Amino acid sequence: MEKLVLHEYARSGNCYKIRLVAAHVGAPIERREYDILTGETRTPAFLAGINANGRIPVLQIGERFLPESAAACVYLAYGSPLIPTDRFDHADMLRWMAFEQYSHEPNVATLRFWLAFVGVARLTDAQRDQLPARRAAGEAALDVMEAHLRDRAFFVADRFTLADVALYAYTHVAGDGGFDLARWPAIEAWCARVAALPGHIPIDA
Amino acid sequence: MEKLVLHEYARSGNCYKIRLVAAHVGAPIERREYDILTGETRTPAFLAGINANGRIPVLQIGERFLPESAAACVYLAYGSPLIPTDRFDHADMLRWMAFEQYSHEPNVATLRFWLAFVGVARLTDAQRDQLPARRAAGEAALDVMEAHLRDRAFFVADRFTLADVALYAYTHVAGDGGFDLARWPAIEAWCARVAALPGHIPIDA
Repeated sequence: MEKLVLHEYARSGNCYKIRLVAAHVGAPIERREYDILTGETRTPAFLAGINANGRIPVLQIGERFLPESAAACVYLAYGSPLIPTDRFDHADMLRWMAFEQYSHEPNVATLRFWLAFVGVARLTDAQRDQLPARRAAGEAALDVMEAHLRDRAFFVADRFTLADVALYAYTHVAGDGGFDLARWPAIEAWCARVAALPGHIPIDA
Repeated sequence: MEKLVLHEYARSGNCYKIRLVAAHVGAPIERREYDILTGETRTPAFLAGINANGRIPVLQIGERFLPESAAACVYLAYGSPLIPTDRFDHADMLRWMAFEQYSHEPNVATLRFWLAFVGVARLTDAQRDQLPARRAAGEAALDVMEAHLRDRAFFVADRFTLADVALYAYTHVAGDGGFDLARWPAIEAWCARVAALPGHIPIDA
């Protein structure tokens, strides 16, 4: 395989997803750190050379650049058991990955970023105004996960797939954003199952 | 193939994506309409039977339900030329689909919904406060697309794929949200290319 470089902000759950998949499939990746709090992914050099959208993570594969965590996870796991080949299960995996990016991450991850990384005292008025709505939407996303996991070990096809990777990344640290996971016991049990898998690495590895 | 039913709000670009893919691959789908303006996707029956996340589109496949437009598009196009099989191109297609849902749709589609469907007079104060930021973020997403299309006919692999479907749906009607596409000529040319493809259907078909 071509040399892999992960352009990342290590504490980001989106970046962790890629490292977790790389660990499970045994792909060695180099890591290059950018401080998103000081705008290091918005410099002209980053926008011109790494990602015109100004975001991490970006997986560099040789001389090619692949933004978006879901795309990088699929690239790394291509042909592995982490991606179901059954037509419905494959699409259902993508369904949970899309749910995570649209209904979960903008709420659960954003509250973690605002409260644990930026700090509530440094939020703008506009951000502070959004706290209640993002809290409610984050809780609703966790409710959807809880209901689904009540009678399942994993999200799709009864085994660990990229759907679990995508949802685990920000869910297991949701406490940083003020979500008390004790309220969602099926999620807590699923988090423990994911963390106990052979090949697992923690977010701060 | 099992019977396909699209649970939708027909004017939604996310629902149109699925109809467009179905047209290109020749899959017959039944359509069932819900009025999102009156909360028809938040009823107990919808949440219990169709999608616990309370959103359309949902593609029903026999007795199984698949939310999220990206997942439904991949299901319908599985094994077709709309999905590249080259490892990088496949991931790059998902990259643009993720970009659309995270950086484009929440801005370009939301402004269309707020301005053309709800009406500016009926927006809440919180929504009205978000207009400038969503406008700027939508323009930034269109700038990223414009730069990419300046020397390409389609987004990935030099041919029409699900990446084009995902981005076309809300881009070609961005004018409804006050984005003047004349500012982005490469996007305008690409929209015309997509609309001229054999098998194409318009959003109001």
